[in-house]
Amino acid sequence: MLIKNGWVLTTRLEKKDVAVDGTTITEVGTSLSGSDVIDASNHLVLPGLVNTHTHLAMTLLRGYADDVPLTEWLRDYIWPREMNLTPEDCYYGNLLGSVEMIKSGTTCFHDMYFYPDQAVKAVKESGMRAVISYPLAEFGNPERAGHMLQAGLQFMDTLRTESRIDTSFGPHSPSTCSPEYLLKVQDHAQKLSKLVHIHLHESKDWVENFSKAHEKPPIEFLESSGFLKNNVCAAHVVHATDKELDILKTHGVKVLHCPSSNLKLANGIAPVASMIKKGICVALGTDGAASNNTLDLFAEMRLMTLLQKLNDPSAMTSRAAVKIATENGGTALKWKIGRIEEGFLADIILIDLRNPCMTPRHDVLSNVVYAANSSAVDTVIIDGEVIMENRVLKTLHEEDIVEKAREHAYDLVNR
Amino acid sequence: MLIKNGWVLTTRLEKKDVAVDGTTITEVGTSLSGSDVIDASNHLVLPGLVNTHTHLAMTLLRGYADDVPLTEWLRDYIWPREMNLTPEDCYYGNLLGSVEMIKSGTTCFHDMYFYPDQAVKAVKESGMRAVISYPLAEFGNPERAGHMLQAGLQFMDTLRTESRIDTSFGPHSPSTCSPEYLLKVQDHAQKLSKLVHIHLHESKDWVENFSKAHEKPPIEFLESSGFLKNNVCAAHVVHATDKELDILKTHGVKVLHCPSSNLKLANGIAPVASMIKKGICVALGTDGAASNNTLDLFAEMRLMTLLQKLNDPSAMTSRAAVKIATENGGTALKWKIGRIEEGFLADIILIDLRNPCMTPRHDVLSNVVYAANSSAVDTVIIDGEVIMENRVLKTLHEEDIVEKAREHAYDLVNR
Repeated sequence: MLIKNGWVLTTRLEKKDVAVDGTTITEVGTSLSGSDVIDASNHLVLPGLVNTHTHLAMTLLRGYADDVPLTEWLRDYIWPREMNLTPEDCYYGNLLGSVEMIKSGTTCFHDMYFYPDQAVKAVKESGMRAVISYPLAEFGNPERAGHMLQAGLQFMDTLRTESRIDTSFGPHSPSTCSPEYLLKVQDHAQKLSKLVHIHLHESKDWVENFSKAHEKPPIEFLESSGFLKNNVCAAHVVHATDKELDILKTHGVKVLHCPSSNLKLANGIAPVASMIKKGICVALGTDGAASNNTLDLFAEMRLMTLLQKLNDPSAMTSRAAVKIATENGGTALKWKIGRIEEGFLADIILIDLRNPCMTPRHDVLSNVVYAANSSAVDTVIIDGEVIMENRVLKTLHEEDIVEKAREHAYDLVNR
Repeated sequence: MLIKNGWVLTTRLEKKDVAVDGTTITEVGTSLSGSDVIDASNHLVLPGLVNTHTHLAMTLLRGYADDVPLTEWLRDYIWPREMNLTPEDCYYGNLLGSVEMIKSGTTCFHDMYFYPDQAVKAVKESGMRAVISYPLAEFGNPERAGHMLQAGLQFMDTLRTESRIDTSFGPHSPSTCSPEYLLKVQDHAQKLSKLVHIHLHESKDWVENFSKAHEKPPIEFLESSGFLKNNVCAAHVVHATDKELDILKTHGVKVLHCPSSNLKLANGIAPVASMIKKGICVALGTDGAASNNTLDLFAEMRLMTLLQKLNDPSAMTSRAAVKIATENGGTALKWKIGRIEEGFLADIILIDLRNPCMTPRHDVLSNVVYAANSSAVDTVIIDGEVIMENRVLKTLHEEDIVEKAREHAYDLVNR
């Protein structure tokens, strides 16, 4: 495949051709020749966006419970519905979420939810790239948690040879998993070279309660237990002291920032600009659509950048925002994605520069972050395959999925 | 015209037909019959969104100067460019902005910028509804300001009989206009039943400097001078004490809230939830695309609502957000728009419910505010005329406008 004559984001924006062989970018240059040419002369060529924290099947619960805080939201709305989830619900929730992600330029995601086999099934069909976490929670029942871990190991083993799918351990949080369990999980993760995907410092209340119970702030506690390593992907981290941020940096912990969800559940604004300044790898996530309520990383980039500017207009550039949503996502998830560069996997999106929102072109990346909405993405390439062309999905049947997902969603909340 | 069988937002959402005769909604009911039928059976039928504060032609400066605070932004980037603006620049800037607004479901706007005759020209062509402010600033030169006011009165007079255009006085701010000048403007406005469109309390610095210079906080000062009346539309009001909000309420001043611009220029978050609680009419605006950087009120609704939830998840419902973006806009601009109701002007948008972002339908207005992006709008009706159908503009030639606007924008910054 040859993407011809586009404005390509490399270290800067330049008119280039991008050659793809199989799943991989083989050359970025000028006047390249080849077959399967995609004319990108009116397009911006960006790495696909990476959604590093979501609960994809929760798309079925989009808009089900707004206007309540995290604890109440979980206890009174989400958990009761999740009790009744079926694998088929999850399958259609995953497909609906996949449609939404692809159409908004996301090419890779990191999921954590019930029935992870259904996420796998959806990913195989959609052509997306993903890291699927096996969800783990102890809830004071170590025996059951031990069985879950065994099932997780088996799940990972069956997916060992999948090309677009990696797996990770998904211990829910340090509240629902004991320190011993977390260490056991981390031990397996180290042996298998897998990520550990966990919720951390989502709400102020949570941090306070944990600190009281363990006589140490959570991040300090997790450090002293030996849990924090560079395979830990910590979602949220809204509230953290300077000292805690230094700890995350020391151990190479990745932060998965979810600004919409954090505001919507009144958890606050994560200090992303400070994290970046300290050299922490911050990547972007949408969280589930039940608390966002979209899976659109364009909306997330915009919100992240604007929020960091609350007190300082220079706190985050649009270039930095795009890097967080692409390259840092690749770094966090340990896939060679997020850059348009020889040797990187061919996860690429094309944005139509003729869109009114992309006009004028004083600063094209500024347009991407602040002005464009995701409908400006017209072509999506994942692993060297064209997954969307002119906004039409080639792997999934959008209309059927929307219909089926709606039925399942309706049934789920009325079951 | 008959909009048949849509989910119509009245006091609640209901399956209804909407009959339009000429420019006006004549009936909202069931099983209505008529000609020019629009099948809305898969659509949500909402009032058109109202952008109550923008500088439309500034769309030419989108992305020209990010990452700087208000004062520097104006002094070092915007004002030097504005010195070189031509009427033709403004014309194409206005057209580009109009394309963007219509395509994102905005049917009416309130503009304040140089060469207001060019905004008028664009509005006549686009079919939009607008209140065009005549821009006024004194800058210590009362004689010149007097001439400007005379020119403004003449401008208003020539547009007296236009059907979709109203005019307002646009004294820039209490810093650039003396108290005497503001009172003179207000006096004319009262006589002509016109709005006064002004910037107020945009940055903390501004409030502090004004308070020092006048020995009173600006809103108290303007009250004691007799300027504040219910025709005053105050853009921004980011920083205001409880006492100042009470003053705004007492005099029926309308607040034009611009959340993106306020964050992007590091001015902060306006206390909208408190304003609403006090009974102040808050409407929504994008500000100019040079400080937003889009004119998309869907993005603005989402941001407004999420920001109000920073500390309280119940601070603003999606229903309230939609009301602010529609009905309150009508109230602020004194047009009979913003509701789907007999006797209201037919400014109506149709949103495709089959869009993945609108699925499932646990709460359709929640989907509108949090999940949808503006590309879900597929039909736009203004003053009883279909202006956009299936996302194709019927009054403006999108491709030509994008091309011409780009040329003018490039030329403007290189002139």
